[in-house]
Amino acid sequence: MRTHFCGLIDASLIGQTVTLCGWADVARDLGGLCFIDLRDHEGIVQVVAEPEQGVDGNAEVIAMAADVGYEDCLRITGEVRRRESPNAKIPTGQVEVVARRIEVLNKAEPLPFHAHENPGEDIRLKYRYLDLRTPDMQRKMRTRTKLVQALRRWLDARGFQDIETPILTKATPEGARDFLVPARMHEGEFYALPQSPQLFKQILMMAGFDRYYQIARCFRDEALRADRQLEFTQLDMEFAWVEERDVQDATETMIRDVFSEVIGVDLGAFPRMTWAEAMRRYGSDKPDLRIDLELVDVDDAVKGSEFKVFTDWAGVEGGRVCALRIPGGASLSRKQIDEYAAHAAKFGAKGLAYIKLSETGEVSSPIAKFFSDGAFAALLAQVSAVNGDIVFFGAGARGTVSDFMGALRLKAGKDFGLVQAGWKPLWVTDFPMFEWDEEAQRHVALHHPFTAPAVDSIDDLRANARTAVSRGYDMVLNGNEIGGGSIRIHRSAMQSAVFELLGIGAEEAEAKFGFLLDALKYGAPPHGGIAFGIDRIAALMAGTESIRDVIAFPKTTGAQCLMTGAPSPIPDAQLAEVHVAVRAQPER
Amino acid sequence: MRTHFCGLIDASLIGQTVTLCGWADVARDLGGLCFIDLRDHEGIVQVVAEPEQGVDGNAEVIAMAADVGYEDCLRITGEVRRRESPNAKIPTGQVEVVARRIEVLNKAEPLPFHAHENPGEDIRLKYRYLDLRTPDMQRKMRTRTKLVQALRRWLDARGFQDIETPILTKATPEGARDFLVPARMHEGEFYALPQSPQLFKQILMMAGFDRYYQIARCFRDEALRADRQLEFTQLDMEFAWVEERDVQDATETMIRDVFSEVIGVDLGAFPRMTWAEAMRRYGSDKPDLRIDLELVDVDDAVKGSEFKVFTDWAGVEGGRVCALRIPGGASLSRKQIDEYAAHAAKFGAKGLAYIKLSETGEVSSPIAKFFSDGAFAALLAQVSAVNGDIVFFGAGARGTVSDFMGALRLKAGKDFGLVQAGWKPLWVTDFPMFEWDEEAQRHVALHHPFTAPAVDSIDDLRANARTAVSRGYDMVLNGNEIGGGSIRIHRSAMQSAVFELLGIGAEEAEAKFGFLLDALKYGAPPHGGIAFGIDRIAALMAGTESIRDVIAFPKTTGAQCLMTGAPSPIPDAQLAEVHVAVRAQPER
Repeated sequence: MRTHFCGLIDASLIGQTVTLCGWADVARDLGGLCFIDLRDHEGIVQVVAEPEQGVDGNAEVIAMAADVGYEDCLRITGEVRRRESPNAKIPTGQVEVVARRIEVLNKAEPLPFHAHENPGEDIRLKYRYLDLRTPDMQRKMRTRTKLVQALRRWLDARGFQDIETPILTKATPEGARDFLVPARMHEGEFYALPQSPQLFKQILMMAGFDRYYQIARCFRDEALRADRQLEFTQLDMEFAWVEERDVQDATETMIRDVFSEVIGVDLGAFPRMTWAEAMRRYGSDKPDLRIDLELVDVDDAVKGSEFKVFTDWAGVEGGRVCALRIPGGASLSRKQIDEYAAHAAKFGAKGLAYIKLSETGEVSSPIAKFFSDGAFAALLAQVSAVNGDIVFFGAGARGTVSDFMGALRLKAGKDFGLVQAGWKPLWVTDFPMFEWDEEAQRHVALHHPFTAPAVDSIDDLRANARTAVSRGYDMVLNGNEIGGGSIRIHRSAMQSAVFELLGIGAEEAEAKFGFLLDALKYGAPPHGGIAFGIDRIAALMAGTESIRDVIAFPKTTGAQCLMTGAPSPIPDAQLAEVHVAVRAQPER
Repeated sequence: MRTHFCGLIDASLIGQTVTLCGWADVARDLGGLCFIDLRDHEGIVQVVAEPEQGVDGNAEVIAMAADVGYEDCLRITGEVRRRESPNAKIPTGQVEVVARRIEVLNKAEPLPFHAHENPGEDIRLKYRYLDLRTPDMQRKMRTRTKLVQALRRWLDARGFQDIETPILTKATPEGARDFLVPARMHEGEFYALPQSPQLFKQILMMAGFDRYYQIARCFRDEALRADRQLEFTQLDMEFAWVEERDVQDATETMIRDVFSEVIGVDLGAFPRMTWAEAMRRYGSDKPDLRIDLELVDVDDAVKGSEFKVFTDWAGVEGGRVCALRIPGGASLSRKQIDEYAAHAAKFGAKGLAYIKLSETGEVSSPIAKFFSDGAFAALLAQVSAVNGDIVFFGAGARGTVSDFMGALRLKAGKDFGLVQAGWKPLWVTDFPMFEWDEEAQRHVALHHPFTAPAVDSIDDLRANARTAVSRGYDMVLNGNEIGGGSIRIHRSAMQSAVFELLGIGAEEAEAKFGFLLDALKYGAPPHGGIAFGIDRIAALMAGTESIRDVIAFPKTTGAQCLMTGAPSPIPDAQLAEVHVAVRAQPER
């Protein structure tokens, strides 16, 4: 239907006749002389309809052009010529197309909103086709396609097998987040949508596929936070006959190559950090290294003080007292300091001690009085505080303190413009094998129950479960966990032992994971893998905060598709066919 | 963990030390001299453990080798040497590896079955990891990966955007086959899994993506026939600003290129045939052109007979009388002819008339008596029957006759070895727009309700709905519909008219497809596309009848996954969270 793309018309085509298809971006009728900006996915070119000697039907062309409205679908044939007043803002700005024929392929009704407006996200999602038609959204979505293509190309060239795993599968034990699907042929039974292809990819290694990947849709039915989706996409990978560094080295190279190819960024070699170090220095297992602020443990410096909150926790097993120095932070008003305290409280802080050193050296601090002059000076020295700084302090249970001080570090980084431009990747390794759940009085898996411990002996693991380190690892980029993986357990006895430590009894394990325990018995090779969050990586590459900008048809935080109206009620007769009923509402 | 792959050890490595990982395919202990066939995904190499002078610990290596069992996971280091008695059957047969170190990475328990056995499909599916580990299944699955990679490479090189569409979406009007997913956040409402991304890909064209593809998972909840799956994979494509030939020419080239690349087959240029011609000559809208048999209409030749079944239908509107000549078919016994009749009956035949001409020219036919000698000879002449043939006749309603005569043609092709080797692609075009449903007394869409009619005028379409031709097309290969598509309706008024003709009222259309009707109003470009069945194409390429051989974890015809045990019962409390209950069983 066309000979060229609008956005690619250039001076090399001057004098040629071209046929273009596209949308009317703008149409201007200057009285007998009409301009149309014709747009396709490659860009915009100016079309002009003008009186011309010796051209039949030109009056008709001008009349048609005069009648063109926003977003009409047009096919235009005309001659390319040099533009009298070039437009340097667009790549086609040197030329224009003199219309000889205009066909209206589809007339557009008045639009609910225009591209240059921002009508709010709900309207954008309802009329998603208009939103996606804008050059900005086109660019973001096309960045995602490029990412996925580059990843596939990289993996295909290295012998990875792209294998699809089921979407209709078995409910998992942490089934609370499973989407359920009633089975027509099996009354009262349900399929579940996979939270990840974890067990299938492990089985594929046992099945001899050696290297596997899949751009896999995963599903998690939970209350949506601002930046989560019910369904999300991960690059799922698994390797047989490997150790940690094999997986890490290969995927670090992959991510580096792909960033270079898609957005021309060299991520360099990725630094490595243990989980313990990351928590200690940054209060996070996914530290944003673009922010040049660190937590400093001050247990020793505060031990001698009379501030009970500090002395209760300083040097205590399971406790932590640490400081965060913010250069220039003395500019914070009392009200702003309160905001920091409120922010810390959201992450579990019971209060927020601070020392403010004005530019002229005056101290403002609710805790100064608990310190001797010498101890106070020593404390300031330890955290390298200088005039103009503020120093925040956290004290309490180790995990909680790390969490809220890490959160303050991020907030301060943003508030004080301390987030450097650029890209800061990182491997975080040596995660704890288990977290101890005080409430349930049992271990829970920090990664998932198939992660191998760093020890080979079951007895060792049992004896040191609380401090055991796993063979898990995360890839972090600018404070985002973009990938997470581990070496897996490949022996049946170890897998059973880990289930047991997690409080999954033999019977339950057999019912839920019998096929895995079986498969481990029949020659399961050592294996490990990783999964990358495609939505997040695409958003980072496209330079947008929201993953909804790189998903064609996202759902709202209310779990709805505003365009199609999903979810929706279903006639009872149709529910009967799959043997379920909507549950009667309890009285309220 | 390894330096080389087992299957790639060759004479160029003689004298070198290699480390291999793999499974013990066979181990033979010849008393102080042990052979292990070590297998990885690349193939098998022979490892030998033998007494050797001056090598420390070799006794230990021999002892370990003697202890190796089937499918043990091993890591072996040793030296490559030329084999004394080469094995021409395997690519590594010129060499062997003399073991210096054997590590048992994972000991295998006695297997439930061995690779050379066929324990039946249920056992294979239950222990799918063992089944997939066999070289034959590895080859089939890897063919599928190659197909998908080749398709993507082709499409990526031509600017197609790989875009993901939702899996959790809105129930469709023909919702009887929808899988339903209860929505946690919306009591009493449900998502549905997509039967195809049809509307989303059309919307993507309206959203300016120009060229789209997706290797998309689709879902259809229906009783499984032998070769269907609840979830299946299609290559989904859509093009903006196109007509039929644009889509057909591009995708024909794609399929031809991919067959050439993956299995080295040149499909040549695809012949084209209208739906009417395909039904007339082959009794099928997906004719297998490898079978050199055709139906011949004999209305004129039988009109003068006294056989009422023929005369009732010959030359009648909506009726058909046709013949199928089977060369050599005179060898069929009475019992075999009855089997043909029974086969035809499955497709709606009420009886099956025939004429058998023995090798010596004797006629055996229940209908000969209804013909004059001359008319009988003329009939035989029209169908070119010669001695040794059998000719079957079908008479009745046009559609039914075509169906059962088409089915007989396929059966005869197989029974008489008339299916030529090789590949016979075909485009079938000019499908009817609607089928008339006698029972419901209304039109139903032959493709789907978004297919454009071949006429532009709504009045024309309304006036000639029963005979209207659509802009749909199918790609057929060896009797399989491997792809189907159409030019879509791109104007709102035409879409509404087609809904109306299909008995979908304005209110219903608005409720179900309001967003599509809206989108068509705001500048929808002409567009069209196609979808290809990846499972079927992969099976054809891999040379297997069953698509289950090219799906890693297929479900049975009973809709179950025998490995994981899906579907399964779910605790009532968990169902309560998503606001559904298992329906009480009606009394039986």
